[in-house]
This record gives sequence, C-alpha cells and structure tokens, in this order.
Amino acid sequence: MSEARDPLRHVKPAVRALAAYTLALREAPVKINQNENPWELPDAVKKRVVERALARPWSRYPDFDPRELLEALARHSGWRADGILAGNGSNEMIEALLLVTVGSGTRVVIPEPTFTLYALMTTILGGEAVRVPQVAAPPGANGSAGAGLVYDVEALAAARRRTQAAVTIVCSPNNPTGSSLTLPEVERLCGEGDSLVVIDEAYHEFAGESAVPLLARHRNLVVLRTFSKAKALAGLRVGYLLAAPELVREINKARLPYNINFFSQAAALAALEEKDALAASLARIIAGRELLLARLGAMPGVCAWPSRANFFILELLSADPKAVFASLLRHGVLVRDVTSYPKLSRCLRVSIGSEEENEAFLRALGTALGEVGLDLSLGRA
Amino acid sequence: MSEARDPLRHVKPAVRALAAYTLALREAPVKINQNENPWELPDAVKKRVVERALARPWSRYPDFDPRELLEALARHSGWRADGILAGNGSNEMIEALLLVTVGSGTRVVIPEPTFTLYALMTTILGGEAVRVPQVAAPPGANGSAGAGLVYDVEALAAARRRTQAAVTIVCSPNNPTGSSLTLPEVERLCGEGDSLVVIDEAYHEFAGESAVPLLARHRNLVVLRTFSKAKALAGLRVGYLLAAPELVREINKARLPYNINFFSQAAALAALEEKDALAASLARIIAGRELLLARLGAMPGVCAWPSRANFFILELLSADPKAVFASLLRHGVLVRDVTSYPKLSRCLRVSIGSEEENEAFLRALGTALGEVGLDLSLGRA
Repeated sequence: MSEARDPLRHVKPAVRALAAYTLALREAPVKINQNENPWELPDAVKKRVVERALARPWSRYPDFDPRELLEALARHSGWRADGILAGNGSNEMIEALLLVTVGSGTRVVIPEPTFTLYALMTTILGGEAVRVPQVAAPPGANGSAGAGLVYDVEALAAARRRTQAAVTIVCSPNNPTGSSLTLPEVERLCGEGDSLVVIDEAYHEFAGESAVPLLARHRNLVVLRTFSKAKALAGLRVGYLLAAPELVREINKARLPYNINFFSQAAALAALEEKDALAASLARIIAGRELLLARLGAMPGVCAWPSRANFFILELLSADPKAVFASLLRHGVLVRDVTSYPKLSRCLRVSIGSEEENEAFLRALGTALGEVGLDLSLGRA
Repeated sequence: MSEARDPLRHVKPAVRALAAYTLALREAPVKINQNENPWELPDAVKKRVVERALARPWSRYPDFDPRELLEALARHSGWRADGILAGNGSNEMIEALLLVTVGSGTRVVIPEPTFTLYALMTTILGGEAVRVPQVAAPPGANGSAGAGLVYDVEALAAARRRTQAAVTIVCSPNNPTGSSLTLPEVERLCGEGDSLVVIDEAYHEFAGESAVPLLARHRNLVVLRTFSKAKALAGLRVGYLLAAPELVREINKARLPYNINFFSQAAALAALEEKDALAASLARIIAGRELLLARLGAMPGVCAWPSRANFFILELLSADPKAVFASLLRHGVLVRDVTSYPKLSRCLRVSIGSEEENEAFLRALGTALGEVGLDLSLGRA
C-alpha cells in the first residue's frame, strides 16, 4: 500500500465535494415512492418480447443505432427519426446533452426544487447550476388560497439572460412538485434567445400535453421522454431525446455506442404497439390522482398540491413529515421523503397507485396522522 | 425558425470539431468484425433468465445498486463487493471514471492505436489525450523478425510523468493490436506515481491473466471488465469496474442511478453461474486463435500479429487491405477495416469465430488475395 500518496487527489474537487447519492433500500406492500406505473403491460405483450429475445443471439451486439426503435418513436411522437436519440433511460440522454454543452464554468439554469440529476451532472462537468426557486402558487380563480409551488417563468428568463446560460432545464410536469410550464411559456423561453431550452417530459402523458409540436419552430428546444412512467417499463431503462437533427448529431457524439440492449429495445417497441392497454392504465392513474386529490382536499391537517403528473406533494400542515413517513411505512405504505429538498421540508411525495393502493394509502395516512399527534388547530381545512 | 441565431454555438468547440462516430451497417454470413463470442450461452440458461424476467414486474425500477450482481462479481473476481461498480457495458464505466477525473486541460495518457472511446470521452470532457504510440515488436527469441506493435512501457511512464497526467488508460490485451502489458509492467506504472492507472481487461479471459490481484496493493489501479466478449452477452450490455472502495465511492457519484436494467442483471448473474459452458467456449476460441495464427503464418502475403485476445491484426504485406476487405465481404466474411487507425493503414482486424467460421475466413482470404492481385514477390513467408 502506498501510504504517502493519495490517488483521490486526481478526482475533481467538485466531485469530491458532492455527497454520494444513496437511497435507503426499503420495501413495503404498497410501494408508491418511485412514480412507477402500478399496472404491468399485458402478459401477452411480455411473452412476445421474451420470444423475440429467445430467437435472437445474446452474444451479438445490439444495433449501433437502434434504427427500428427510432422509427417507431418518430411515428409515436410525430417528430422526425433523425431528430431522435434513444438511451438507457432519459438519464443517459440528460448526461449526453450536458456532456456536449457543459464545461468549466458553463451556466445551466435549473429551477428548484426539481429532479436532482440535472444539477448533479452539471456540477460533475465543472459547470455552474444557476438555481431559480419555484414560487408560491397564486390564489385560485375563486379567491381560495393557492397551494404548492409553481414555475416563475419571468425569473427563469431573467436568470438565463443574466448568466448567459448555455442550457435551461425545466422538468414539466415537475418532479417532485407536479407543477408545469405552459406551452406558451416554453415557447417564450425558446424565442427569447438561442441557448438550449430542455423540457423534461418524463410525465407528459399524465398532463396530456407536450412541447414536441414546438420542435419544428424552435431549433434550440430539446424534449426528453421516458418509458419508465406511463409506458410501464421502469425496469428496462429506455428514454429518448427529441430535437433539431443538427443538434441531435452533436449530442449523439457523446452517446455511448450500443447503449440500449436488445431486450429493452424489444420491450420499448412492444410498448409502443400496445396503445390500448397503456391508454387504459393512463386513464386509471389520472382518475386515481383526481380522486385522491379531492379526498385529501377534505382531510384536515394536510394539503395535497395540484399536480398534472402521476404523483403529488403531500404537505403536512402540522404533523412532522418524517414521523408521518415512518408511520405510513409501519402500516405498509412506502412514499418518498422529500423533506431534504429546498422548500419541501414539510412534504412527502406520493405516487398514484392502483385503486386499492390509493385506498390503502388514505387509510394509512388517517392512522398515521392520528399516531403522530396531529395538532388539528393548525390544520387548513 | 430563428434564422439569425445558432443554438449549435452552445455546443462545446471540442465536440463540434469531433467527427461523428458512425459505423456502416453491414451483414454477412460470417460475422467476425466485433470480437463477439461465436457461441451462445446454453438454451437452458437463457430460458431460466427469461422465466425470471416474466416473474418480475417490468414497471418497477431495478435496484438502485445492483447488490446481488455486485456480490456475484466479488465472488467471481476475488475482489471486494464495495470495490466494484457495474454498468451498462464497460463503456459506461469508462465514462463515469473520466467524468470524475477529467476537466478542462486534464491530461490522460492513452496509447495508440487503441479503443477509440478513451480519447473521444477525454476530448468531450475538455481534457487532453496524450497519445503514446505503440512500437514495433522486437525480434523473437529465435532471431526471427518481430511482428506487430507492442506497448512501450518506458514511453508510457515518461509521458505520464512529463504531463502530470491524472489518468493513464491501457487496454490489455489491446483492441485492436492484441498486445498486452505484463503484470510487472502494470505494477511498475502503479508504483511510480499516485495518478490513476486504468487497465481495460475486456479481453483478459483470452489471455488467461488479470491485474485484479494487484488491486490489494495499489489504490490507484482501476480494472475494467465486460460481459460482451468471453461472457457471450454483448447484446445485453454489462460491464464492471474494480478499484479501491474509496475510489469506487467517488466514481459512483457519476454513475447514473438504476443504470442496469433487470433483464441484463439477470443474464449476467446466469452467465456467472454458467462456468462450464463458458470455459468450453473460451477453450475453443483460444484453440481457434492458435490454429488460425499458425495457418496464417504459413500463408504468403500476410502477417498475422501475435495476439492474446479473441481477435488479431491481419497485416496485408502487399495487397490493398481495403480491396481485401471488400473481397472478403463479397465472399460472405465480414471483418473490421482498421486502416484508418494510426500505424494500421495496411491492416484488418479479424475476430476468432467458430471452427467453421475460421475455415470460411481462411478460404475467403485465399480467394481474396488471388482476386486483388497479390504481388507474391513482396510477401514475407
């Protein structure tokens, strides 16, 4: 062992300073902590994928470019195949995009709170994450108090101008707050400069709208999507990126060759063909979301934030959120503790599950709020 | 469309300057162009993997850390599980390693010719690839002329010292030349400084030796391995990295979460259990390599370079290598044209196939050399 020397000094200081990202391994009968789809693709679809896998040599590389998948994604999205890249989850596409744009000191505008990977990867690449806080939702049209956080498009635009940011990344609907940028807001950002505007549409199916139709007018727009949520394939890691072909050619330089294994490609193709089953599970998730939000709206001590995704923020108005998290887990329900996110110190994130899981969550929440000694006098409802 | 503006100016100049890496899509009955294993895992193994896949929900994320796989890799390699990272091919591990070590101006020592990804990723990250040419092999022990290129460990060590490189990457056995660094040479590099020494052992099974036993003594050593070659799983993209746990913790910060899909994890686990079948295919590949090299040693007009991998360089001593490549393809044999690599302008790379494929290659080569008008007077043998 070479005691006097330190190989770790060759790791970049910005990386050394990062806390390692870890996730405690927890299991529970009702797992609504990762925004997964509670319904599987039909067994017949999975059997078709498996048969296709058994008919193909495993010792041979997948396609250098997943041509068949890109063409299916073009038909699915309405955007051109040469403007699409597919990857090992949309995470890999975020990484490739930032690899080609971010170097020492490059500014990247990133709202907060949002998905942590954008800022993490920016930091690792030596860039500077310019954080723009989300703001309290304005009062409702009926004068009721606003709930939750929303994007401040003025502040995003100002930060982008002021810092001459190369990239602005907005998750819409946003993980974990559920808030969205409207399409006119996206278009405004795209039109105001030529730096890249990245809309992470991981949850777009649940919102029913997409920025993809804006791609034809805006060469600086990049849209990210995933098969991990509405498409029910989180286990197989497939995501894609849509942008102008000349930009896609540059991002593709940082894509690792053979990056999607043949099985995940086959599963993604099958999911794209399986429109009916996925539309049915999507409708059930949206109905579940609306029902849960309505029921929670009538529950004292909590505020469920509006959401266009397959999850929502549950704000604990008086009870300790960590105690509620622990109590829910004891009663078999695993949600996500997001109290360490900026502005979410009183919050848990709850994914929409099956009807039974949603009911189990409501029951467990009632029990938990009783157990942790809710102070009803501080409740809102 | 915003004509006067150019979103591409936000792509880093070093990336703009890179030629896009493309691979012409070619097919042939005898495909010996990607160093794949010509033999599949037994059908029974594949069926087990598939049954495991059907018993598992596809809509749920894989493990955040692939614990079961890491523990199996620890047993397989003899190195500790907390010193191992697994990824979507060893390419992803190379990327993670360079992400945490390479920023603007960081020097990375890379021999040439070698696998292109090391220098590509270094350049994208703003680093400087310090290229160290391989040198002509010395004469053999019996006084015969040397064949091929070998590593110049003095030059590697000198370049590393001179440039204060943070990382030195050596593929051993080397793709595409087949040459290896000896273990004493690896140990010398590790001992001479504290900067990282990365040995890419993608082909180590074919050479029968590994730097992994050196890990316990050298905290600056990183070993990369893959399931794409001897382990017969190129289609599923699994690779891994071995190093000191404190270094692995840093590299892990740049690993994307959930980076190996559940199916590839299951396949890798099955391959690790299937020692006998893989040992048998390994023995056949090595025997095939030795037979091919002996047969080619007796063939006029070509020089097959010594190799400890599952491929070798075929130097065309007088015929035009591109013409030979094209003729082989016309006769149903696809090899790799490596004429654009430094020092390989007269060379093709040939993977070891099945016994039938090796014979087909020899026949097609004889035909090709006749077709392209070999000048026998310039031959060596």
